[in-house]
Amino acid sequence: MNPQLRKVSAIELQAFIAKAFIAIGISASDAANIAELMTRADVVGADGHGVFRLPQYVRRIKGGAVNIKPDIRIERAAPGMALIDGDNGMGHLVMRIAAEHAIAKARTSGVAWVGVKHSNHAGPASLYASMPVEHDMIGLYLAVGNANHLAAWGGLDMLLSTNPIAVGVPAGKEPPIVLDMATTVAAYGKVKTAAQRGETMPEGWMIDRMGKALTDPRRANEGLLLPIGGYKGYGLALVFGLLAGTLNGAAMGRDVVDFNNDDTTPTNTGHVIVAINVAMFRDLQEFKASVDELIRDIRNSKRLPGVDAIRLPGEQSHAKRAERLQSGIPLPAPLLKSLDALAAELKISPL
Amino acid sequence: MNPQLRKVSAIELQAFIAKAFIAIGISASDAANIAELMTRADVVGADGHGVFRLPQYVRRIKGGAVNIKPDIRIERAAPGMALIDGDNGMGHLVMRIAAEHAIAKARTSGVAWVGVKHSNHAGPASLYASMPVEHDMIGLYLAVGNANHLAAWGGLDMLLSTNPIAVGVPAGKEPPIVLDMATTVAAYGKVKTAAQRGETMPEGWMIDRMGKALTDPRRANEGLLLPIGGYKGYGLALVFGLLAGTLNGAAMGRDVVDFNNDDTTPTNTGHVIVAINVAMFRDLQEFKASVDELIRDIRNSKRLPGVDAIRLPGEQSHAKRAERLQSGIPLPAPLLKSLDALAAELKISPL
Repeated sequence: MNPQLRKVSAIELQAFIAKAFIAIGISASDAANIAELMTRADVVGADGHGVFRLPQYVRRIKGGAVNIKPDIRIERAAPGMALIDGDNGMGHLVMRIAAEHAIAKARTSGVAWVGVKHSNHAGPASLYASMPVEHDMIGLYLAVGNANHLAAWGGLDMLLSTNPIAVGVPAGKEPPIVLDMATTVAAYGKVKTAAQRGETMPEGWMIDRMGKALTDPRRANEGLLLPIGGYKGYGLALVFGLLAGTLNGAAMGRDVVDFNNDDTTPTNTGHVIVAINVAMFRDLQEFKASVDELIRDIRNSKRLPGVDAIRLPGEQSHAKRAERLQSGIPLPAPLLKSLDALAAELKISPL
Repeated sequence: MNPQLRKVSAIELQAFIAKAFIAIGISASDAANIAELMTRADVVGADGHGVFRLPQYVRRIKGGAVNIKPDIRIERAAPGMALIDGDNGMGHLVMRIAAEHAIAKARTSGVAWVGVKHSNHAGPASLYASMPVEHDMIGLYLAVGNANHLAAWGGLDMLLSTNPIAVGVPAGKEPPIVLDMATTVAAYGKVKTAAQRGETMPEGWMIDRMGKALTDPRRANEGLLLPIGGYKGYGLALVFGLLAGTLNGAAMGRDVVDFNNDDTTPTNTGHVIVAINVAMFRDLQEFKASVDELIRDIRNSKRLPGVDAIRLPGEQSHAKRAERLQSGIPLPAPLLKSLDALAAELKISPL
């Protein structure tokens, strides 16, 4: 095994995260709730969105940027929608409530669109798009990212974030389809992970301010992320931001706070979660059989020369989950070092 | 002026299209309705989706693939959703009813998600995403394309179409933002237009079955369209297809009928239109002011070297609309020739 990695179990990791949050004044139940979702991110392989973020979260809470005792409430509601005010609480708490509300509402409304404002970074998009799936619903999640690393197509002013989309679709015997993607070629979390691991980025992830390829992740703050498909990815980042941010009265464009470089300002993060109750549209078992059939048709497709397997969105996370629950979550040495420093600072036992 | 082009007014074009549909048995009011939407496509510059499609539509109607007297009906409804059965009518008729239903429903439900099955090709996605905008709502449209030109990432079996997304967002003093994009680098309509114009395609639009670039649009049926952002665009095409197709009981995957090469089989086309009533989320004027501000921030951004202007999605269509309503719609010679042949066949006066 790589000496630069140590594996920890999901249970250990979750307990450590919860202790850290309790140490800075979050209630035990909220701490357990956030820790469970953050660990879930690590278990499915969303390495830039789990415990990796813990030191930053703690720093921002200590800086007063995040409310540790939020009153998360439904501000507006109509039969097909709700707007939730997260009261600047941790995004995980806010989004779990939003997703559960969407699911409950979609039982009778068929489709429930729940907008969220005054929230914070909530980890990987797939967490929330997957919640309706457990209730035989499709989940659709959009968010405004917490730092602008993207310009309009042809521009230099960083007015857009990597605004992600995630969609979770229940299947029958097959694992669910779970797409989770930034609208940029690479998510900024991947850039941060590459920097921490001392890796070089492939060309196409970022450009510098002259339009040339930028491959050193330590120089990331001198450059711009590139959207997928050029102007198309720019368009997607823009409209997802309008839906998750502007529509909800959350930050978008110049109002987005760079939470990597600011420990005191609330982000007013916006999200959307839509729960779509499949059985309202057609027979649930027939739907699931159709999804299974499609999955198998895709998996068993003829392949281009040199391709070893055709994967469905979420398939690799699904496999990683099984493996990591079994044999632990690999944490690279620089991350372990920062978590040890955090433990010392918070006077809790290290991992 | 290019001798290979002739300009016709929107009024002339609309009248011609309507006459063609009446000549094959469609009622005068339905024909006017379809002709108005098809002309709107040409006016905004969606050249692959307007009158260009008329010969094909006529051929399929004559072949019995499309029902010219459909009973378009709401099959299922709940407070946040409806499912419409288009009874195999022309997609324009079905989608106009679906969009109007979504708008009416969103007045009280806040957000209305309307799925559609047993429909047909309905022209450009922007037409329907724009309809809610006129009522101070955001429109979100998804569809399953009517021919599979895309494989799963790494695959060769064409199980996916260019499944587009369109989002229309009302602004204040600025023109609305209207994104309309295929999940492929190029829509198949653009490939068809390039073939008709005798143009070469840029590398990156299509590959052949060995994975090599394909640039001759006349060889399009030997190749595959490429998704935007590689596996990400494949993921988007897949989940948009699940939402617009599978969820509604419409065609998806192997069930998609190639309407370019089949004049007799109903396509069972699926679409989704979502109307999002902005005023249910926040003050409408504040929302519009925020959108205007974002548009201006983007337009006035600093630019990369060599870039002359930064555009918003829909801006070029908006400009084209003004120009074409003023000075006419340019029709290339091969298209005019096919429309003349159609006029002769249907015994109506040519354009």
